[in-house]
Amino acid sequence: MSKKEHIGITESKSGNFSEWYTQIVLKARLADYAPVKGMIVLRPDGYAIWETLRAALDKKFAQEGVSNAFLPVLIPESLLVREKAHFEGFNPEVYWVTHSGDTPIGDRLALRPTSETVLYHMYSKWVKSWRDLPLKLNFWNTALRAEIKSTKPFLRTSEFLWQEGHTVHESRQEAESQVEKMLDIYREVTEQYLAIPVQYGKKSAKEQFVGGEYTLTIESIMPDGRALQMGTSHMLGQNFAKPFSVKYADSNNVEHYAWQTSWGVSWRLLGAMIMVHGDDHGLVLPPKMAHIQVVIVPILFADTDTVMKAVQSLAESLSGMGVRVHVDARENVSPGFKFNDWELRGVPLRVEMGPRDIKAGTMVVARRDTLSKDTIQIDGAPDMIQQMLRTMQDDMLEKAKEQASKLTGEASDYMALKEGIRAGGFWWADWCGKELCEDTIKEETGADIRLLSPKTGGTCVVCQSGNSTRALFARGY
Amino acid sequence: MSKKEHIGITESKSGNFSEWYTQIVLKARLADYAPVKGMIVLRPDGYAIWETLRAALDKKFAQEGVSNAFLPVLIPESLLVREKAHFEGFNPEVYWVTHSGDTPIGDRLALRPTSETVLYHMYSKWVKSWRDLPLKLNFWNTALRAEIKSTKPFLRTSEFLWQEGHTVHESRQEAESQVEKMLDIYREVTEQYLAIPVQYGKKSAKEQFVGGEYTLTIESIMPDGRALQMGTSHMLGQNFAKPFSVKYADSNNVEHYAWQTSWGVSWRLLGAMIMVHGDDHGLVLPPKMAHIQVVIVPILFADTDTVMKAVQSLAESLSGMGVRVHVDARENVSPGFKFNDWELRGVPLRVEMGPRDIKAGTMVVARRDTLSKDTIQIDGAPDMIQQMLRTMQDDMLEKAKEQASKLTGEASDYMALKEGIRAGGFWWADWCGKELCEDTIKEETGADIRLLSPKTGGTCVVCQSGNSTRALFARGY
Repeated sequence: MSKKEHIGITESKSGNFSEWYTQIVLKARLADYAPVKGMIVLRPDGYAIWETLRAALDKKFAQEGVSNAFLPVLIPESLLVREKAHFEGFNPEVYWVTHSGDTPIGDRLALRPTSETVLYHMYSKWVKSWRDLPLKLNFWNTALRAEIKSTKPFLRTSEFLWQEGHTVHESRQEAESQVEKMLDIYREVTEQYLAIPVQYGKKSAKEQFVGGEYTLTIESIMPDGRALQMGTSHMLGQNFAKPFSVKYADSNNVEHYAWQTSWGVSWRLLGAMIMVHGDDHGLVLPPKMAHIQVVIVPILFADTDTVMKAVQSLAESLSGMGVRVHVDARENVSPGFKFNDWELRGVPLRVEMGPRDIKAGTMVVARRDTLSKDTIQIDGAPDMIQQMLRTMQDDMLEKAKEQASKLTGEASDYMALKEGIRAGGFWWADWCGKELCEDTIKEETGADIRLLSPKTGGTCVVCQSGNSTRALFARGY
Repeated sequence: MSKKEHIGITESKSGNFSEWYTQIVLKARLADYAPVKGMIVLRPDGYAIWETLRAALDKKFAQEGVSNAFLPVLIPESLLVREKAHFEGFNPEVYWVTHSGDTPIGDRLALRPTSETVLYHMYSKWVKSWRDLPLKLNFWNTALRAEIKSTKPFLRTSEFLWQEGHTVHESRQEAESQVEKMLDIYREVTEQYLAIPVQYGKKSAKEQFVGGEYTLTIESIMPDGRALQMGTSHMLGQNFAKPFSVKYADSNNVEHYAWQTSWGVSWRLLGAMIMVHGDDHGLVLPPKMAHIQVVIVPILFADTDTVMKAVQSLAESLSGMGVRVHVDARENVSPGFKFNDWELRGVPLRVEMGPRDIKAGTMVVARRDTLSKDTIQIDGAPDMIQQMLRTMQDDMLEKAKEQASKLTGEASDYMALKEGIRAGGFWWADWCGKELCEDTIKEETGADIRLLSPKTGGTCVVCQSGNSTRALFARGY
């Protein structure tokens, strides 16, 4: 086995998809397994991608009037149990702190599985009048839920980076429109930044957030035919406002329970990005998600000064235009090693500049998604490169849409649904709304309802009841 | 009691300093007490200030070649005990997770008191050759240490926001220079951004980081005469490299243990900023630390359109210059209420623009630190305001230096030291280096050694031994 095979990806995407995915995560140095069951460490490249996503979301959150804040990771058991369904839903996965040093703690402390309970205790203090509303806070932190199934970086871990947003409103209508607005933001960022198309709609009662009224979701189909929940936005109604006493006085000084929402996305989005865009050479980053968008590799066998001068000049021009550029001037590795390294790490564009190119007034630009190489003029190169980044971003979304569309079908009867699910992918089918039929499908095919469309009137594929709802089925991550 | 008294600060800085501090934290809405003993919640203003500090440090860290990354919050007991002194130092304050759901966990899990142990387990996998060095990672997260003493927001909490940086080097010399470099960065940010002067030097053996070789520290004196540790940078030597097997092969393929450092600052810096600069009206933010640097309050009793147009035009000019500006166009509160509100929240400059000002081609600018008001011309106002922000930043540091210098003295004998400590402040005195004398001073005066100067040759104020070291004593937070 050559050295290159050790460093590069040795499994193909069309072969063992799961092993291919894990190799990318580890070999592109995005993450590594931590010495605690179910947990991972993010290495600089993985964390930088997360920070890029965070910046994109923060910008949209700020436009929505959302502010960031901070909550402690520990929640007293007495608070966590206050909304019963919510507690029952999370309890099996909760990590419990019972001691500090050798001292037992009276009221056990839960590691945050999500922060509704501790935050709404605070909201009951902070919200007094209609003047305090709407209140819109967001938290960039981690959630902890003990996973018993085998660990899968970004997709199934016992601690995960996410954001959780929590809003309070005067009316049901305003809260419901907030729930939709946040789903729109998630959809926009997923499509515009991650270049991944989504399906969106409401969760079934069985799959919704425990304790809330209903949940809106965005879902994407992965290349292996399994669905991934990409983000959720929950209408909480007054379900938490009542046990936590989140009340406000209106302009006539009459007190009302407030209406609330919560919503979140996690580093699963990074997992989706790896699966949808990666190839047999490694990671492929959509330009908007890349912390390094352009890497310049100088080819330094002659005229070193001239080459480095041209390289630096290009880097400065690009940087001045807001392009995130890096010059790989390492002296202890060959250009070929660098090419493979940057391909593995998924950098969108690689520029090669050597003495011959410069003499000819040209440079070579390699696109990571298509692996194509173009020779372009040095004159005007910064604009051309910026345009290539835009084109690549658009092309990646288009390609992902085509892939997703090939993996989405309609099942007119139960037989077709069973066959479809066996083959993989999203399958639309009519469902009566009864949990019994939902459970039957889950048991017999392994598929859950990912979301419901607003379309009704069909016949349930299981029990043949009329006036059923169109539902999207898939086996999920 | 009028409404204003309820909302504003009711204790003076020169009166009950501790109560004054707590009132600012709560009433300026920086933070609030969480429903878990020893823990606080950061509200949007508090978190925004933290993010400003984070951005300032991130910029300097990046220049030093430091990358951000992510570690899980849980550390197995078996790892935490591997460096014995380190474990003994932290053990009494460690929160222990013993169950997930109803399932007991075999190897108990500690909530991160600091991440050396879990990270160096990873470093032993990641570091193989001299090509992998230096390795410089930083983590923006929280540390958890159960505090038994009463909670003090930002100063004494059981969970705190901080950053912890961890580097690995080929040589002792390179590691030692990194330790110094990080202390320099902390000193620069503290002085240039927080406008707080510091003393710097080495900790005594008793006060240093447990498990390390030595600790460098920056310390500041607070207006109540007590010292605050502002940031520390630790030389770990090979103390962790050995138990955790952090080894590298040099260019001749000979294996060596690596040399390591770690360093951190926390939200204590926010506490220091409140104490040093705050006044009886509330918070006073140094311009570089303010997420809102200029607030414009339109006075809208007549010519509303003209006023709002002038206000928007100024806001756009300032924003275009990179000034963080906010227009307070709230309609349900009076200008007077707004003035008090922004004073309480510490916004550096307040601009007032009404119809009469605009007719006269002027505006009123109020400086938060001096509470002075100036009338300036609309023409050229953006440049003038930017200049005022710079001046205010410089003036605040100067004023803080004067305050600190009044609180710093020299004690030529033990009597003078005792009296000095009783009165408060930093006191330089000679110390022989023996823990017995250090303990005597601590017991009899309550003061610890905050740091050691390089100056030697004096006579110990306790035991009269010659060739003693100049040490800085104070009672601390």
